[in-house]
Amino acid sequence: MSIKCNKNAPIGVFDSGVGGLTVAREIMRQLPKEHIVYFGDTARVPYGSKSQNNIIRFSRQIIRFLRTQSVKAIVIACNTASALALDVVRQETEIPVIGVVIPGARAAVQATESKKIGVIGTEATIRSEMYTKIMKEMDPEVSVIGKACPLFVPLVEEGFSKHNVTGEIIDYYLESMKESDIDTMILGCTHYPLLRTRVREYMGEQVHIVNPAYETAMDLKKILEDNDMANETLEEEHATYSFYVSDAADKFKQFANSILPYDIETTKQINIEEY
Amino acid sequence: MSIKCNKNAPIGVFDSGVGGLTVAREIMRQLPKEHIVYFGDTARVPYGSKSQNNIIRFSRQIIRFLRTQSVKAIVIACNTASALALDVVRQETEIPVIGVVIPGARAAVQATESKKIGVIGTEATIRSEMYTKIMKEMDPEVSVIGKACPLFVPLVEEGFSKHNVTGEIIDYYLESMKESDIDTMILGCTHYPLLRTRVREYMGEQVHIVNPAYETAMDLKKILEDNDMANETLEEEHATYSFYVSDAADKFKQFANSILPYDIETTKQINIEEY
Repeated sequence: MSIKCNKNAPIGVFDSGVGGLTVAREIMRQLPKEHIVYFGDTARVPYGSKSQNNIIRFSRQIIRFLRTQSVKAIVIACNTASALALDVVRQETEIPVIGVVIPGARAAVQATESKKIGVIGTEATIRSEMYTKIMKEMDPEVSVIGKACPLFVPLVEEGFSKHNVTGEIIDYYLESMKESDIDTMILGCTHYPLLRTRVREYMGEQVHIVNPAYETAMDLKKILEDNDMANETLEEEHATYSFYVSDAADKFKQFANSILPYDIETTKQINIEEY
Repeated sequence: MSIKCNKNAPIGVFDSGVGGLTVAREIMRQLPKEHIVYFGDTARVPYGSKSQNNIIRFSRQIIRFLRTQSVKAIVIACNTASALALDVVRQETEIPVIGVVIPGARAAVQATESKKIGVIGTEATIRSEMYTKIMKEMDPEVSVIGKACPLFVPLVEEGFSKHNVTGEIIDYYLESMKESDIDTMILGCTHYPLLRTRVREYMGEQVHIVNPAYETAMDLKKILEDNDMANETLEEEHATYSFYVSDAADKFKQFANSILPYDIETTKQINIEEY
């Protein structure tokens, strides 16, 4: 891929809601010179219960919106859209588009020695076996145990990450996985990096925890460097971050401010159906 | 109101998702001879974050669908739609339409002696102060304390109603309300009747717990009787219940079977945007 672009243009990042902010946060950390335009589809969250046709339609609309913001690359920071829409929209889009599933899957396949990998995620992610399929394509010898942890998202969104009950619920969901012989575990939902410390403590040091948000930012960095697209002109403290949502901008802002390293001032609400 | 109708026609009940099943359940208990057609708008849940215009549009679509099922009356088993759409759609609809907010508010105003009433609900319900406004119209002397309990819905939907952690989360949300001087408390979310026993235990016997689902079924019964619309021809064991959703019929069925007194066999998925 060789792309002529304005290196000072922003990275577009989108998710069905707030979860993808953990991916945006990793990009801010690893690529501090890059501007970011984030879109959270809060009007249509969650994507997990929607059909593939709808997920592709939503992703196309969001990519059209992000391109009005002149982005130079797009990160699909949503497991469902990464699994269901990436192949289609990548072919239609002239700028690089990456998802979170492949970087996470690849890191897990590279890390495992026992070839036993655990994946935790939403019910939709686990039921779809998206990580299992991709990892088995990468290495047919791996075996994968999936476990849906549907309460993790509301616990994180309601600010219970450090609360007592979260420990009990981690135990409830992950007990069988702890007793299994996995040596690697994927945090297969964009909210889960916010429980990473607690999950790591619970699972113990012998289990390598893969954070797809981290791996995705690494992949993005490599793509930008390989294609001479990285922003070199900017002092890192001047990168600008813009946030757009399709509904309930206030709640989004509140959550963003609780997890990002700085306070965001405005979140703009747009009508995504117009794109 | 005097309405000519087929007394054997079903009652239409709708909600943004599964929560309204607690209202359907009360109708089954209190009006065992009435057939029910239930619609859960699982594709567009939750309603709390949507604009009033959208809630009215959704309600109109659902009422058009329910009328294709020849319902004789409609129950809006959703707090948000009851507060934001009832006035508008009632005027457009020739058959009786009732919501859950007014019956719940009236029961609380009648029950309180101290004139201090607590309301618990979703963030959207509490922020809108829908119960407060209606109760103050009924009795300007009441004072109302609201408390959003956003984790209650996922706890109930994920089957944690009887789990340990639910007790801790009840304590977390309701401690200040327990220390207040309310003597009446409204379960202002259709999921909360499924936590009624635990909330009652926590709050103690001196607090009267109002279940709007129960009050709504009582109101419906009165309207049917007053207007000579009640079904008299049927043996109660033969009432038929039909369930429709706009997405993810399997998950709906699973939840319905966990709370209804009998197993539902089929749930049909329809495209509500076509109505």
